[in-house]
Amino acid sequence: MIVDIHGHYTTYPPGVEAYRGAQIAQLGAPTKGKMNVTDDEIRQSIESGQLKFQRERGTDVTLFSPRASWMGHHFGNELISRYWTEHSNDLIYRVTKLFPKNFVGVCQLPQSPGVPPAKSIPELERCVNELGFVGCNVNPDTSGGYWQDPPLTDRAWYPLYEKLVELDVPAMVHVSATCNPAFHVTGSHYMNADTTAFMQFVQDPGLFKDFPTLRFIVPHGGGAVPFHWGRYRGMNLDMGRPELDELVMANVFFDTCVYHQPGIDLLFKVIETDNILFASEMIGAVRGQDPRTGNYFDDTKRYVDAVPGLGDADKTKVFEGNARKVFPRLSARLSS
Amino acid sequence: MIVDIHGHYTTYPPGVEAYRGAQIAQLGAPTKGKMNVTDDEIRQSIESGQLKFQRERGTDVTLFSPRASWMGHHFGNELISRYWTEHSNDLIYRVTKLFPKNFVGVCQLPQSPGVPPAKSIPELERCVNELGFVGCNVNPDTSGGYWQDPPLTDRAWYPLYEKLVELDVPAMVHVSATCNPAFHVTGSHYMNADTTAFMQFVQDPGLFKDFPTLRFIVPHGGGAVPFHWGRYRGMNLDMGRPELDELVMANVFFDTCVYHQPGIDLLFKVIETDNILFASEMIGAVRGQDPRTGNYFDDTKRYVDAVPGLGDADKTKVFEGNARKVFPRLSARLSS
Repeated sequence: MIVDIHGHYTTYPPGVEAYRGAQIAQLGAPTKGKMNVTDDEIRQSIESGQLKFQRERGTDVTLFSPRASWMGHHFGNELISRYWTEHSNDLIYRVTKLFPKNFVGVCQLPQSPGVPPAKSIPELERCVNELGFVGCNVNPDTSGGYWQDPPLTDRAWYPLYEKLVELDVPAMVHVSATCNPAFHVTGSHYMNADTTAFMQFVQDPGLFKDFPTLRFIVPHGGGAVPFHWGRYRGMNLDMGRPELDELVMANVFFDTCVYHQPGIDLLFKVIETDNILFASEMIGAVRGQDPRTGNYFDDTKRYVDAVPGLGDADKTKVFEGNARKVFPRLSARLSS
Repeated sequence: MIVDIHGHYTTYPPGVEAYRGAQIAQLGAPTKGKMNVTDDEIRQSIESGQLKFQRERGTDVTLFSPRASWMGHHFGNELISRYWTEHSNDLIYRVTKLFPKNFVGVCQLPQSPGVPPAKSIPELERCVNELGFVGCNVNPDTSGGYWQDPPLTDRAWYPLYEKLVELDVPAMVHVSATCNPAFHVTGSHYMNADTTAFMQFVQDPGLFKDFPTLRFIVPHGGGAVPFHWGRYRGMNLDMGRPELDELVMANVFFDTCVYHQPGIDLLFKVIETDNILFASEMIGAVRGQDPRTGNYFDDTKRYVDAVPGLGDADKTKVFEGNARKVFPRLSARLSS
């Protein structure tokens, strides 16, 4: 079985945009309202998009969450974010009901600038306990590119982490759109957030002493981290600490959203196979085909299949075993 | 000859700290004052540090600039930054006079939040025309981690770029310290800035139509860029543009400050040799030795020497030829 642990509903039917657009007129007095999307619209958007690619590429299940760049936690207040998040997660739930074999839910959280992460707990519980979701996305920068939130190791996050541990679900660190003209959403903001989060963990690894079973996925292959693995190892050893593998890698995992063979090869060269989870983030940042190969840039399964010396046991880990380990609720679902 | 194009004076004698410390008490009415550093102190700090490593590692010349994390453009106003910058550059000049065979100057600019980049021109001219410097460092984020400046492609930068072109000196994109607790200076802020700057160029490559001979070095191996080269190629092709090599790589260069063999191997696999300049940034972010090899993490010459299939002609480019091409004033100096 091949599990893609990183997919977003990037092909929203038009009713989603309409709902979001209407929120602009309600900033003073938000109401939850209704999101007008039919089952047929969902079916059509998925069948002609993510499901089509699943079949073509031979993957089986995608962990599916709301469109990341549209989480837009920077927009509006706590209530705007809550209503939008509830609707977005409900939409994912409908996808998982329409295509129960192909999509398993991962939720966005109703984060909002200045609002304690603890306020996201009720929606997390709803998604996991009532909708059957198996993980969540955590945004380390609700400002959208101005980085006003405390580091992920700050105690402000601890109530949320206690709940993640209790529910036994991991968090993927994932920012949303950027309002800052210095950054490009998928070209620098995403990568920067991955690199930033990893370094926060390295700076304050006490987080994982406090939560030995807390698990984070740093997506997009870990941002800049594997390419600079020697820098991170060296800085860490300079501080008199044990190797990174011991310090943080029991709790931190990278995905394979790296869109060329040399990048994937490097990832597997420096990161333990136990810490790598297969993912493609399709349909996402890069939608075209490489004119040099004719293959889709984000068809990451091809790259993983071609990693030199990667044996069958390791492939099984990366395609399925590690996902089951990091997402125990997915494992239970697949086994039932 | 082996030219290391990226070194900072990270081993400042104590008089430098003292000068900087005194500036805190002068924020209301800054005066230029004096920086009390003797030639003997400079000699001692260099001989026991950067020069010692040059000799041990077999490199010949280092392009030397003020300590990057201490540029501190976020601190104080325009005048504070100007006085500090002038002293810092003068200090580099003294190093180049004491060790004329080993160090060639690169300047920091007196940038300051909200101050137009054009205001840095007089100091750039002084450093190049009077002190014999061959390049400069440009900080894309004078806020220190809050990213308030316009992208490097914005027209606000154009007067400075006109001067760079006129003087025929390149700019290294280099941030300084971060005031933002989300970021670690050398662990995420530096990497993020590299990735951010590259993506700014990709977003608005018209900059290089306007300045066909403008040259930027994106240090630290280009941040996350080579690891995600497929993402950048793909995003760019999705926009209907030519390959990155054609679009921006006549003007953008990466250095070799990547502190492990797999990273350097990847760099050479995906980036044209013409665009790679040898550098180590010693003495910098990682000062220790890899317990697995006994070698210094930042002894990047070892990695370049060991790149599979890198022939002598390519090595000469990376160690010397490309530096001469990107820094014509260095080339003139070396030839004279």
